[in-house]
Amino acid sequence: MRGEAVSIDRERSTARIDNDVQTLAGPEYTSSTEAIRRYAYRPEYRAILDYFTRAWEDLGFTVTEDPIGNFVARNRPPGEPVFGIGSHCDSNRNGGKWDGTLGVVCALEVCRAAADLGLDLPLQAISFLEEEGSGFGQMVLGSRIVAGRVSEQELREGLRAIDDGRSFWEHAEDAGYEPARWRECAHILDDLTGWIELHIEQARVLQDTGRRIGVVNAIAGYVHGDITIDGRADHAGATPMDLRCDSAVVAAETIVELERLARAAGSHTVGTVGEIEVSPGLINAIPGRTRISLDVRGPDDGAVHAVVRDIAESAERAAASRGMSACYRQRQTVPATPMDSGIVAALEEAAAATGEPFTTMISGAAHDTMCVADRAPTAMVFVPCRDGLSHTPEEDANPADAALGVEVILGAITALVGQSAAA
Amino acid sequence: MRGEAVSIDRERSTARIDNDVQTLAGPEYTSSTEAIRRYAYRPEYRAILDYFTRAWEDLGFTVTEDPIGNFVARNRPPGEPVFGIGSHCDSNRNGGKWDGTLGVVCALEVCRAAADLGLDLPLQAISFLEEEGSGFGQMVLGSRIVAGRVSEQELREGLRAIDDGRSFWEHAEDAGYEPARWRECAHILDDLTGWIELHIEQARVLQDTGRRIGVVNAIAGYVHGDITIDGRADHAGATPMDLRCDSAVVAAETIVELERLARAAGSHTVGTVGEIEVSPGLINAIPGRTRISLDVRGPDDGAVHAVVRDIAESAERAAASRGMSACYRQRQTVPATPMDSGIVAALEEAAAATGEPFTTMISGAAHDTMCVADRAPTAMVFVPCRDGLSHTPEEDANPADAALGVEVILGAITALVGQSAAA
Repeated sequence: MRGEAVSIDRERSTARIDNDVQTLAGPEYTSSTEAIRRYAYRPEYRAILDYFTRAWEDLGFTVTEDPIGNFVARNRPPGEPVFGIGSHCDSNRNGGKWDGTLGVVCALEVCRAAADLGLDLPLQAISFLEEEGSGFGQMVLGSRIVAGRVSEQELREGLRAIDDGRSFWEHAEDAGYEPARWRECAHILDDLTGWIELHIEQARVLQDTGRRIGVVNAIAGYVHGDITIDGRADHAGATPMDLRCDSAVVAAETIVELERLARAAGSHTVGTVGEIEVSPGLINAIPGRTRISLDVRGPDDGAVHAVVRDIAESAERAAASRGMSACYRQRQTVPATPMDSGIVAALEEAAAATGEPFTTMISGAAHDTMCVADRAPTAMVFVPCRDGLSHTPEEDANPADAALGVEVILGAITALVGQSAAA
Repeated sequence: MRGEAVSIDRERSTARIDNDVQTLAGPEYTSSTEAIRRYAYRPEYRAILDYFTRAWEDLGFTVTEDPIGNFVARNRPPGEPVFGIGSHCDSNRNGGKWDGTLGVVCALEVCRAAADLGLDLPLQAISFLEEEGSGFGQMVLGSRIVAGRVSEQELREGLRAIDDGRSFWEHAEDAGYEPARWRECAHILDDLTGWIELHIEQARVLQDTGRRIGVVNAIAGYVHGDITIDGRADHAGATPMDLRCDSAVVAAETIVELERLARAAGSHTVGTVGEIEVSPGLINAIPGRTRISLDVRGPDDGAVHAVVRDIAESAERAAASRGMSACYRQRQTVPATPMDSGIVAALEEAAAATGEPFTTMISGAAHDTMCVADRAPTAMVFVPCRDGLSHTPEEDANPADAALGVEVILGAITALVGQSAAA
């Protein structure tokens, strides 16, 4: 199929994508008047699944939901190979129109554009449940259930709704699902020959470099943790500089050093201190204890873990040199997920064929695709979002970029399915 | 009087001081069962004034209260010269037994010890109202009223009780005082030939250097302010190091630089960042805005203001070099208060005569004595408090050190009144 680029009617696709996104930001699809707020097992979430059910059924697809509510639409019988596309359509609590939903809308548009062009591609769309963690406080929940990255104990007892404290299990049953059959959710990936998710970038790389498409070749792994420095909370006026054990100064040295270490690590490694908590937290008291959070990410797990190890040691040394102590504790770690080189290459080729500016990049944010990657070759496509804003009603993106993304995905799938059929 | 050291019965004074302090920590004198909590116009504050009234009247002193409730006990008729001693007996909201109260108890013990020795010294004790600001949120309030450092508008309307929001004025009237006559409070200092306040140190200099007495030769001035750095709140995972405007990194550089500047300034200058506020304050978000408080103090106003100017400029430069902005805002400033060299010398001589280890030092904390210094020659005596702890129920001090302080003060006053009589 090489060289036979697929061209879609981008204006038509732009209009349909825009109509979907705007419609799905209407009052029927959100529980807030100020933001998009839509999470699992709520009426507004049911409404959006019903919208997608109608849309895919109109295209002749068969729509099902798995035992916990992951949405599946396919145009081949069970057991036949299909190429997977999709994202999620739940939102952040204070979310916008684009994050997740655009990926499901674009999966739908891939199917519509294929139909327009008379391409009978074997396709399966998925909208994963609870990517944002807004309902039960755990991110990428639906795809983690599919990937078996949860325990039954978590689902029965551990996961509690933020709003009413009742269990995930109970909410799922009340909504008509069968959480007891959660292990069967894994089967929704059984027939996938590949998987592509389109998503807004959630940062400024595309905007700031003037690119309309990002082909994602790796999803960063990350370490979340905290460093706590214990000093002594003395009187800020009465304690000479030489007699202080000021934990905030050690924290400050650590924040500066983290920036240096992350830059030095290269390989797209990033490090951030997003939370700083000083105690007692009074203008006239030397901070006796300071806690800083650590978020270190990158596509190279070795580089990420080296930065974490080095910053923990640096904080301990800085504290010890001043007669204090520092202690690092990990909250959570997730390894990097490399994307499939064949799918990345097909996307790059399709993107080049459009003549529009694109780049190959990593995803610093986590996505459902991380959980699909265990079972099928995967990649992602990013489109720019204004000023990198996401998880806010201010979130904005251009449906024309999304239509371009649809053309790139459709081109890549056509090439990949053709290769696969030829093989 | 030089060379004729005054010796008191320290064991007897220790026992009386201990008895007073322990008694005044009893349930009648605090509104909390977990801490000492005692502030103006409350029943427990009335109780402690009644306790001191009885004690001084037993020594033949005349006790009065000024129009807002500053407590005065003197053994000479109005218009005759007297030497002033005292402190405050309100507490922090979560206070201990010693802060303030020990100074009034020791003023009482100076009078008792003088009586024991048959010394008919002209004395006036004062217990200032609301030093801690626990009732109405403003520190050294009673002595500021005496010094005329308030406006009638503040007293009538501006100052509101933390507990019920009603005005200082209204509370004072309800307690039987006459706030409309507040300007007459200045007269309580009219006859003072000098003033000495004893207080716990509230830091660790005496404990850590093995001294039992500190003779204070200056009370530090201070600047309170804030530096706010405005960057950009991007996704911590998705934003490369080169595209960040991380306000927390500039704040961290500023905290490290403040320590360097304060050390370099010398002259006992100290600088502290006690509050750090990051926004949005999430582990996975780059801090878009960071506010840090500044507390810079020292006995040399020039050095203090130079540090403030330099740290503000440093933050602005650091922010600008990364494409951000930083803004300094002053909350409040109070100049340093030098103590009277004659009283300091008399205290040093009396301290040396005891044979016990002492030092001359500055007070980094503010005290009522700052407001007395406008009107009379003043100095202070510090005694150690365990681990520098104050404003906490853990606050602890040794009554034997306080008795030593009483001997030093009595010796100094005897010498000073003798000189004054001879002059």
